Amino acid sequence: MLLKTRRRKFWGWGYEGDGLTAADVADLRKSLGSRFGLSHAKLEEAPRIEDIQLREPRISPPRSFGEILSTDRWDRAEHTLGQAYQDLIRGMRGQYQHPPDLVAFPRNEADIVALCEWCSDERVAVIPYGGGSSVAGGVEPDVGDGFTGTVSIDLRHLDKVLELDRNSRAARIQAGVLGPDLENQLRPHGLSLRHFPQSFEMSSLGGWIATRAAGHHAVLNTYIDDYVESLRVVTPRGIVETRRVPASGAGPAPDRLFMGSEGILGIITESWVRLLDRPRFRASATIEFDSFARAADAVREIAQSGLYPANCRLLDPDQVLLSNSGDGTMSLLIVTFESAHHEMQPELIQALEICRASGGRTQGDSLEKEVAEGTRQDGASGRWREWFIRAGHTRDAMIRMGIMNSTFESSIPWSHFPEFNARVLEVTRAAVKEVCGVGLVCCRLAYAYPDGPAPYYTVVAPARRGSELQQWAAIKDAASEATLSLGGTITHHHAVGRYHRPWYDRERPPLFADALRAAKEVLDPAGVMNPGVLIDPQPQQGHSG
Amino acid sequence: MLLKTRRRKFWGWGYEGDGLTAADVADLRKSLGSRFGLSHAKLEEAPRIEDIQLREPRISPPRSFGEILSTDRWDRAEHTLGQAYQDLIRGMRGQYQHPPDLVAFPRNEADIVALCEWCSDERVAVIPYGGGSSVAGGVEPDVGDGFTGTVSIDLRHLDKVLELDRNSRAARIQAGVLGPDLENQLRPHGLSLRHFPQSFEMSSLGGWIATRAAGHHAVLNTYIDDYVESLRVVTPRGIVETRRVPASGAGPAPDRLFMGSEGILGIITESWVRLLDRPRFRASATIEFDSFARAADAVREIAQSGLYPANCRLLDPDQVLLSNSGDGTMSLLIVTFESAHHEMQPELIQALEICRASGGRTQGDSLEKEVAEGTRQDGASGRWREWFIRAGHTRDAMIRMGIMNSTFESSIPWSHFPEFNARVLEVTRAAVKEVCGVGLVCCRLAYAYPDGPAPYYTVVAPARRGSELQQWAAIKDAASEATLSLGGTITHHHAVGRYHRPWYDRERPPLFADALRAAKEVLDPAGVMNPGVLIDPQPQQGHSG
Repeated sequence: MLLKTRRRKFWGWGYEGDGLTAADVADLRKSLGSRFGLSHAKLEEAPRIEDIQLREPRISPPRSFGEILSTDRWDRAEHTLGQAYQDLIRGMRGQYQHPPDLVAFPRNEADIVALCEWCSDERVAVIPYGGGSSVAGGVEPDVGDGFTGTVSIDLRHLDKVLELDRNSRAARIQAGVLGPDLENQLRPHGLSLRHFPQSFEMSSLGGWIATRAAGHHAVLNTYIDDYVESLRVVTPRGIVETRRVPASGAGPAPDRLFMGSEGILGIITESWVRLLDRPRFRASATIEFDSFARAADAVREIAQSGLYPANCRLLDPDQVLLSNSGDGTMSLLIVTFESAHHEMQPELIQALEICRASGGRTQGDSLEKEVAEGTRQDGASGRWREWFIRAGHTRDAMIRMGIMNSTFESSIPWSHFPEFNARVLEVTRAAVKEVCGVGLVCCRLAYAYPDGPAPYYTVVAPARRGSELQQWAAIKDAASEATLSLGGTITHHHAVGRYHRPWYDRERPPLFADALRAAKEVLDPAGVMNPGVLIDPQPQQGHSG
Repeated sequence: MLLKTRRRKFWGWGYEGDGLTAADVADLRKSLGSRFGLSHAKLEEAPRIEDIQLREPRISPPRSFGEILSTDRWDRAEHTLGQAYQDLIRGMRGQYQHPPDLVAFPRNEADIVALCEWCSDERVAVIPYGGGSSVAGGVEPDVGDGFTGTVSIDLRHLDKVLELDRNSRAARIQAGVLGPDLENQLRPHGLSLRHFPQSFEMSSLGGWIATRAAGHHAVLNTYIDDYVESLRVVTPRGIVETRRVPASGAGPAPDRLFMGSEGILGIITESWVRLLDRPRFRASATIEFDSFARAADAVREIAQSGLYPANCRLLDPDQVLLSNSGDGTMSLLIVTFESAHHEMQPELIQALEICRASGGRTQGDSLEKEVAEGTRQDGASGRWREWFIRAGHTRDAMIRMGIMNSTFESSIPWSHFPEFNARVLEVTRAAVKEVCGVGLVCCRLAYAYPDGPAPYYTVVAPARRGSELQQWAAIKDAASEATLSLGGTITHHHAVGRYHRPWYDRERPPLFADALRAAKEVLDPAGVMNPGVLIDPQPQQGHSG
């Protein structure tokens, strides 16, 4: 399998050899580059492994672990940073301050149990690592003092679909499998998890669950949470295995304690997940709106209608422009229905009626009805899709060109959305103007619930070389402050990690923090599991409450 | 408001004056009574309050609480038992062993805060009380030793819709409101929570959330959980208020710790909940099947189709007979689609195609298409509905007639369902035969998920007067043992309470129990909140881990 032998980049998105072509880069210069006066900016080199200085490992791999522990420079560099803008900047400049002392590649769950035991005994901090796509500092071994060292535990070898229950449409799957490999294993059975976060290529099932990833349907069961039947989790105290049932009302749901726990309680090793039959029918349309506000009204009505589109993605004019989906004069709504069971044209027609009543116009080329396998997507929705899939590579190139490129997201009730969106855009644009001079802040709605949307913001601006971290911090702080104070959540699906802590700490009820800390002290008495994520590191003397 | 001035029965279902008519009772004698040789059985009297002996209150109501604390005999008797079969038997025979010493009727959240503080200080056990419909021993003040007394805190005065957000289709609602009153307050706004558990009349919003009640759509968002936007909870340590957002990926969901916590962490006082527009369109059909197994296949296909019926209820032949929905020779499937937005006839037609392919036949009178308001339901589905709504009263009469009547439920993946169902029925029928001689055990599927159904079992048998508790315990133990050992959950929506503890303790991962206990110790340091429910009472010295 070519897929498995390719080496992941230690900096940037994806695998070695992947990335934009020279022609793509030229296009980028012409569009964004010229907009920001960077059309002739030198493309900063991606870092070379031989130039990366890493501090010496502070701990030695015990012999008993054999080859599963690595001190290889590439491995350590690859596991030092996530994929946030500030991570990419630091990585490009060789700033690998917190490399893991060791990188573990366990072959099985027993290896993970042994690693967690050893780390607890030796006070070595554990960083669970799936695909490494965290944009919240969730995989960086920046754990503060109080530990003898750090081990990043990479689950890449736990990548199999272990068991398949066709009749119940469920499978037992190892947590380390990345999106494409997972779908490849399910495809021969006509099944799909259909979980497509933007990080799909470089994120894992366990990572999705540990961070409560969104990437499913636009208006229904958006989160991976809803597809988890049961979990196995290795904690330093032992294995937690929840019962595999379709539903249970027996006490607070054990699975829900681990969903979103971001590695602070243990390492998810496998999960029974619910699957879908691969779609056979798809009906899609792209609708133009002069008014973003009226388009958002249409999205609200669709989300409240019970029509359940698989995709319902509203792009504001700047987002349209940025993603090459149009000329940036109008908002675009992409609506897609899909089903393995029945034609979805009737649902699409009803959604279009809602759109027309809000002033939406169907694009000429956009009404598509297809058999879904081998689907071809033309027009704006196809261009959007292409941009969406390539975004990781595009971002790497933009960053090397000197263009800041980052995102943040929230969710907010519909009644507060117009003011929320206006203020968040205003505050963020003001911050961009102040620190970058010019720039672009745009909004899209990727998920819409009956009670409110999940707005997603992209910031693109010319950065000042050497000042990017401070520039982005100023913008992110302003945006986060606005998000929180206007009633939104600090994260709809990017997780908390280390970067969102200041705002998460305010969003989360204080007594819930105490309860979560108590649960952690029980499951991780030595306090070694991903310290600093979600709650403060509190290394303990091994008592269990 | 007549509704509010009626007094709830202290024994049995509903309000004083409600119940079966003499004609209803005569019908019951003729049908079930004659089947079990009880057609001439004396109707045992419902207990009279003047005959009930309650132990003297062990604690005195502090003056500072004024009239919110009651030692009235009716109040104490009413709050002693739930609505389980064994509760009704004990109540009928005057066995009120564990009355609350005091019953509190707080007027507001501040009263609840004060009560929880006083109880923590005085080591008085707190029993949160909504509608009192627990069938799991969740409201009985049977708290073991270690407490100076018990207070049942009845939230009946916290019964208002406080705030309504029409655009976001959400409302902030006090937790003590019962089902009918809640819907009455929402109806003028064209909205509904549409949460209709069988206990609807005598159960509260807070109770639904605290016990993770099911009562919503048959195949999608079955639980109240999915309708909770945010919560306010009074714990002995203070108030927890979660952020009101449509969705958040910020850490483990705080709401989910309290959903299903059954009062052991605190008292839910209010919640922002998601609402639905009241349905305008409904399409319904009743389908007959010769084979229950093939009918279950049809239910599976419907649940996996993405058609999302509001109701999809499969009754086995004995359940059909018991509920007067037919002659008991066939299985019946009632499928209903409803929408506030669009006609649902097309969905119904597709569901019927699935049924026909599994050997289902549409009943002549059953294909209905209606404007939903003021709906009239004829035929089998109407008879089912009538039986369902009256079931609490029917059960009281059956019990007085000497007929055992109880239920249990589970959920199980589809691939295991045929064997699970066969074995659970076999084991339970064998137990019924052994302890009652004759009897009836039937199954219905009330909720069906893509990965499995939630089978619901009803046991009806002639009981031996004076031996009912032992008889039911033997049957329930056998059924529970089978349920657990065959992979099911001990409860899909009846909660754990005190009665399900032995099996819940086996179902729940041990380390999750430790984590939950630690969370409880943080929020309820004195261990006074509903002791004995979910986890063992562990009165503490006030430390917080």
